[in-house]
Parts: sequence; C-alpha cells; structure tokens
Amino acid sequence: MKLLRQLCEIHSPSGSEAAISGFVLAYIKRESKNWKVKPKIHYGKGFQDCIVLVFGNPRTAIFAHLDSIGFTVKYGKELVKIGGPNTKTGFNLVGEDSKGKVECKLSVTKKGELHYRYERQLDRGTALTFKPDFRETKNYIQCCYMDNRLGVWNALKVAETLENGMICFSTYEEHGGGSVGFLTKFMYEKYHIDQALISDITWVTAGVKAGKGVAVSMRDSGIPRMSYINRIIDIAGKSHIAFQLEVEGAGGSDGNQIQASPFPVDWCFVGAPEQNVHSQDEKVHKTDITAMTDLYKVLMKEL
Amino acid sequence: MKLLRQLCEIHSPSGSEAAISGFVLAYIKRESKNWKVKPKIHYGKGFQDCIVLVFGNPRTAIFAHLDSIGFTVKYGKELVKIGGPNTKTGFNLVGEDSKGKVECKLSVTKKGELHYRYERQLDRGTALTFKPDFRETKNYIQCCYMDNRLGVWNALKVAETLENGMICFSTYEEHGGGSVGFLTKFMYEKYHIDQALISDITWVTAGVKAGKGVAVSMRDSGIPRMSYINRIIDIAGKSHIAFQLEVEGAGGSDGNQIQASPFPVDWCFVGAPEQNVHSQDEKVHKTDITAMTDLYKVLMKEL
Amino acid sequence: MKLLRQLCEIHSPSGSEAAISGFVLAYIKRESKNWKVKPKIHYGKGFQDCIVLVFGNPRTAIFAHLDSIGFTVKYGKELVKIGGPNTKTGFNLVGEDSKGKVECKLSVTKKGELHYRYERQLDRGTALTFKPDFRETKNYIQCCYMDNRLGVWNALKVAETLENGMICFSTYEEHGGGSVGFLTKFMYEKYHIDQALISDITWVTAGVKAGKGVAVSMRDSGIPRMSYINRIIDIAGKSHIAFQLEVEGAGGSDGNQIQASPFPVDWCFVGAPEQNVHSQDEKVHKTDITAMTDLYKVLMKEL
Repeated sequence: MKLLRQLCEIHSPSGSEAAISGFVLAYIKRESKNWKVKPKIHYGKGFQDCIVLVFGNPRTAIFAHLDSIGFTVKYGKELVKIGGPNTKTGFNLVGEDSKGKVECKLSVTKKGELHYRYERQLDRGTALTFKPDFRETKNYIQCCYMDNRLGVWNALKVAETLENGMICFSTYEEHGGGSVGFLTKFMYEKYHIDQALISDITWVTAGVKAGKGVAVSMRDSGIPRMSYINRIIDIAGKSHIAFQLEVEGAGGSDGNQIQASPFPVDWCFVGAPEQNVHSQDEKVHKTDITAMTDLYKVLMKEL
Repeated sequence: MKLLRQLCEIHSPSGSEAAISGFVLAYIKRESKNWKVKPKIHYGKGFQDCIVLVFGNPRTAIFAHLDSIGFTVKYGKELVKIGGPNTKTGFNLVGEDSKGKVECKLSVTKKGELHYRYERQLDRGTALTFKPDFRETKNYIQCCYMDNRLGVWNALKVAETLENGMICFSTYEEHGGGSVGFLTKFMYEKYHIDQALISDITWVTAGVKAGKGVAVSMRDSGIPRMSYINRIIDIAGKSHIAFQLEVEGAGGSDGNQIQASPFPVDWCFVGAPEQNVHSQDEKVHKTDITAMTDLYKVLMKEL
Repeated sequence: MKLLRQLCEIHSPSGSEAAISGFVLAYIKRESKNWKVKPKIHYGKGFQDCIVLVFGNPRTAIFAHLDSIGFTVKYGKELVKIGGPNTKTGFNLVGEDSKGKVECKLSVTKKGELHYRYERQLDRGTALTFKPDFRETKNYIQCCYMDNRLGVWNALKVAETLENGMICFSTYEEHGGGSVGFLTKFMYEKYHIDQALISDITWVTAGVKAGKGVAVSMRDSGIPRMSYINRIIDIAGKSHIAFQLEVEGAGGSDGNQIQASPFPVDWCFVGAPEQNVHSQDEKVHKTDITAMTDLYKVLMKEL
C-alpha cells in the first residue's frame, strides 16, 4: 500500500492536478516496463493534466479521476469549497502559498461560513486540502482522499496485467468536470471505444456495506444504459468475486460527463464503498479493495 | 389510435429503451414500404437505443424521445425517481424482475419518501413505470406516457408522407439526456442539418388550453434563437392550423440538449398540451393531436 | 465612449442577438481597414448570430458575449426572466411587439411574481430589456448592460492593434449558453487554439474594489486550470497594469461553457468589476476599463 499512501500525500484539488499528474506519469514510465503489456502513453498538449494509457486493442476504458475536494482561500480568512467537502471545525488543512508551506485548521461558523485559522493571511486563491493521515489496520485503510486515490491505485494495479484496454486519468471530477469530454472524444474517435468503467469510490449505506464486496452501481443521479449494466452484472455474477448492487438517487461521477458528451459511450461505476465520505477520515475495507481490482481484471477481459 | 395504445403499453423508463426501440424499429421496417419515401434507417452500433430515419434531402430533423419517467427499486421497499414523476399514494406501477412480472402500488410517506407496496421485495435496480390504462372518449385520449408516446406517434405519422427530412428517436430525455449530443453530431456532420423540431408533449396552463391547437413554444427553461422561432410562427400563421404560443420559465426538452451540444443547430418545441402531467392520467385533446401532425407536415416542407 | 453608448442602446436579450450582431459586424467591416491587421471574419451559416475574427497566427481567443439579461412576456401581464436580472418595482423596460415600440415599468409582487405595467397587453414572447440611461462622470461610466457591452467594447478596442489572436462574439451567455460549444470546436479544430480569455464584467465585492484595477478571476463557480491562471498572473504582475485577484464560489461565464465542451481549452476570466450588478444602474470605474484593455493587449502578445 506504499503507492496508495504516496498518492494520498499529493496535494491535488480540482484545477491543480499538475503535481499528481507528474507523479503518476513518472510512476508509469518507470514501472510499465515490468507490466505484461507496455502501453502507449498520451499526455501533455491536447490532454491538459490528464494521462491516457492504451494497451493492445482496447474495447473498454477505465476512468479514474486524479483530483480531490478541498478549499480555496477567498478574501481575509474566508474559504470557498472545491467540490463538496465535509466541513467540521478542527479539520486539518494543508497547502502552500508564496510565503511557504502552510498547515492550518478549518473553522465553520454557525451560519455555515468557512474560515481557516492561521497566524497570517494566506495568498488569495491558495488551494487547501485535508492533511493526510494514512492509517492501516487489519481490515481497513483510512485517510483523506481514498476518493479517488484508491480509484487511481486500482487502475494502476489493473495496468500491470492488462492486455487490451485503455486507462484515462481525468481531472476536475469533484468540481463540475471538464476533461472527460475531450477524453471521451479521443477514445471514441481514435480508438473506437464505446464502453467505460468508472474506477471511483462510493458510499457505505444501508444497502452497500463495508467488507461485502465492490459496488456495481446501477444508477446514481445519472442513469446509464441498463443493457450495459446488465452485462456487467452477469459477468460479475459468474466471477465469484464479492460484489454488491448499488442504487442511489444522488451522487455522480465521470460517468455523468461521459453521458453528457456527444459520443455514444456506455459507462458503469464500479468501486469500493467508503465510510466518512469526503472527510479526512475516509475508510475502506481491504477486502473490498481486493474485490474491486479483481473485478476490473475480469471485466476488462470479458466486456 | 391502435399504434399509440401499443406504444403506451411498452415499459420504457430512461435507460431501458431497448424494448421500445425494437418495437419502433420493427414497425418502421414493416410499414415504411407503404410510405411516400422509404427512409434510410440508422440504428445499432454508434446509436445505442436510438433510431434515425433519413428521407430524401433533409433540412430539418424531428426529435421524439422514446423514454418515460418512472421509478427504480432501491433498498428494501424504497424507490427513487426516474425523471420527475408525479407521486401519489395508490398509483399503479408495473415492472419485471428475476422472479417475474410485477404489479404493485406507489406509497408516499408524509416526509415524501417513496415506497412500493408489494407482497415481496423486488430485485434492486428494477425499474417500475405507471400501469397503462388507455382511455378514449369523443374528445380526449388519456393514458400515462402521452409524454412522449404521442410525440413518437406523431413522428411516425409524419413519416408516412415525408419527402425530405430526418427523424431522430432519442433516449434518456426524462433524466438528464445523453443521446441528443451524438444524434446532433450525426445530423450536423453527416447531413449538414441545422434545424430541429422537438416532437414532445407540453402542459395545459392558463395560457395554453386543451382543444385550442398545438403549442409552439417560444421558450421554457431554455431560450432558443428567436429568428428561427419567428420563422416557425410565420409558417404556422399562414397554415390555418390551430396553434397556441407558449411562454414558460421552467420545463425543458431535447431542445436544451441540442443547444448544449457543440453544434450550431436551431430548435423549436412544437407539441400538443396535456393535463395531469407526468401522471398515470395524462390527457390530450384529439384536435390538438391532429393539429400537431398537420403542423409538422407543413413545417417539414416549408422550413 | 460613443461606441460603448451605441452598444448599450441595442436591444439584445439572450436568443435575440441578431440586431447587435448586425451592428458589430457592420462596425468591424467599416473600421477594420484602419486596424493594424485586417482580420478574417467568420459569421452567418454555421455561426448563428456569433462573429469570429481571426488575426495573423492566433494562439489565444477572446470571448465576449453579445447578449444581455431581460424578461419575456408570458400570459396576461406576467413576465419570466431571461438570465438573472435584478428585479425592483419601477425599473424601466423597453421592447417592441407587433403594435410597435413599448416603454413600460417592472412591477414585483410580494410573492416575487413579475409583471409589467402598461396600458395594453403585449404580444406573448415579447422580450423586454432595461431602458438604457447612459451616464458618464469624471470617474465612472454607468448604464444597464455594462455586462457585457463593455466586454464587447474591450474586444473591439483590442482588435485595433491585435496582430495574432482570435475574437469570438458569443450569444446566450446570460441564459445557459449554447454557442460557446461550437465556437470552441471551431477555434480548436480549425485554428488549434487552446487558450481563451473571457472579456466580461464582474462584481465589486469586499475583495475587488472599484478603481483598483481589472479583475483576474482565479475561480468562480467554475475552477479553471491553475497552471494557466498562474501564467496570466505572472504576466499581469510584470506588466505594471493595475489588477486585482478575484476568488468567488458563485457566478459563471463563457469560461464554464468552454470547460464543459469536449475540447482541451484553458480559460481565464479577466474583466473590470461593476457595482449594481444586473440592474439598470451598472457602474464601472473608468480606470478599471483602461486597465482591462491594457492588460488584454499585453496578454494577447505574451500568452
């Protein structure tokens, strides 16, 4: 879990994905010579801070977003949200401005206004993220940003043995999206791929429990095409891998962005569930992580 | 009205349009040999569950969405909405899961939570729709899903004598869209079409009354380009067909999806108004249906 | 400021940009022979009411929206909003219907319902805008629709000496957008441009003051890519032009539409701040206007 821990430690709020993109790219360049198939790597001009890997003859693309929720320094000691972070007075925040590295605390007023507590004013526009505190027990991994460093980690694990497929590392997911449109264009027009899997982390709920397997989401705020979802459920059912069906009316993912794009691409969210969503204490059961990676390996072969 | 009745009986919530798409495709293949012009039919790979018909040299495309509102089974006896259905305790719902066909009742708690009442738990993700009860009187047709089986029916009636034009049967309209983007891309790039008509059903209101003609919508939540709307109003004015101008600040259609697409395509919503919107009792005046079809025939010639 | 005054006087609510588009096009055709570089002009078929100017070898595009907020006549004396106008009983509105020019007053009921006060009923769908009352003092320009006639004016001023760059005059910005998608497609596919500046007007707030310089927005409801924003801030910092950093959690611009498009184009909002936003009394400090134009000239050279 060293790689996951490293990923969690990188400051990467939506809009500021350059550092994590660089880290992931270096990792891929270094490690991919040991993978079963060495992928073609697309990045840089025309991809913003995204990275696309192409293995063999791809039929299906995995999407994993590189960004996280956070906060932007507004005026004085005010903060505005990046995405939808959980907010509790005392949460530890980190960032960096022109005067150097910063570690401060979140403060929430009775009216719900957000401030940081720190000895000086930070530069306008400084992005703050939760301070990582990586915890591992027998059964659980816990840290901020399991959503979606774990989705990225999963894609990199699947990459090791992937023979045919595409992996897209996307940006901006937590804050309205903006890169999945051009990534979908690229995969559909250049590689004729019309199937996607969303490698992301979902919620532990009354219907989806920790330790009971990876969640295959039948819908959230977005409704994918059921004929595709049913194929995935069939494959999962025959795989003997632990999985749970999720049905939600809220929440969304890069899948919604794929559906909104002008390309006929099917998508399905497949990911482990977490507790303490969008907080500094996101917690995922280890067996659900294993199930997630195992199911991706099967799906990338059989879809 | 046999065709309309058949269309109303098909279970087709957003995301599950495969069955109605198959029915419409079979109908087209069977009937189109009797049409004035036999259209080219596009469907399958690259179109998901949509169907596109091309007649002669098309300048204008009709959009009619195949899907309906409904409900998805969540956990236990909970339901979540597909689109924006009217909800009233006692509404009759139908669907099918692994144990067979289901007929059950909607129940709405004081807090507005939605449940189904049935002797057993249904499979997660099962989609339920209103139970069709097709009623015809001297002046009215009434059933769930006039929106938008009537829009589909209208397009199929217009098809019978259409010489030049395109008809797009779209999906997902009731729940955020997702197919109009690639349909617009197809019509604009392959056929250079930049004019669209939205064959859909609207609301009887203080300004738009039952039996007073088809509604030409000047705007709803979306605002189309007025120079196009004014051309349509001019043609309608000269046609001697009964029509009413609609102006709303809410509601939307496939038109909004066309406008959001990266293609410069004008659109206008033209459709009969209904009472009891998004319920099991949607009711449309017969003369408004006739006016709708008549106006489409004129517009497809003169636009 | 004669040009700005003329622009303010043209009725141009979202959806009805034909008149202002014609005015701007005539201005460009007349004046561009005196500009440093005569641009290629794209308009008409394929551009709706938008206009695109191409100078030399463009790397960056300026977007300035031609439309304004306003109201649409609904049924009886009801009005619905176009975009998000400030509403106060007594605001002066103008428009034109089949019976001729109209000048009337806005009335807001206690429930917030909007009506017009006038001697007769207006045609359904008639669009009304604020009555222009152009005021100039030593330090300020004041009128309705500084947002965004001033952004258009700024683009036309920059055009006079522009050597390499693109200018896109867009439509529908105040009401959900709809033209920036195809404009972005055009600039990215035909001219390989992946950098944009949003020439628009923002808010005077606790953090952004009148007379303190043009605002460079680090974010609003949309979050752009920070590596691009930081390049702009660096250039601005070295320019000795007065500018202010803006950070907001709400509000949006054509920038959001660029980000939502399926093209990898960076964007940044750069514009003077105004008081009395979206009212008939929008007020901008003259030195901020000068700073805006000056900074655009530098950015178009150095980006």
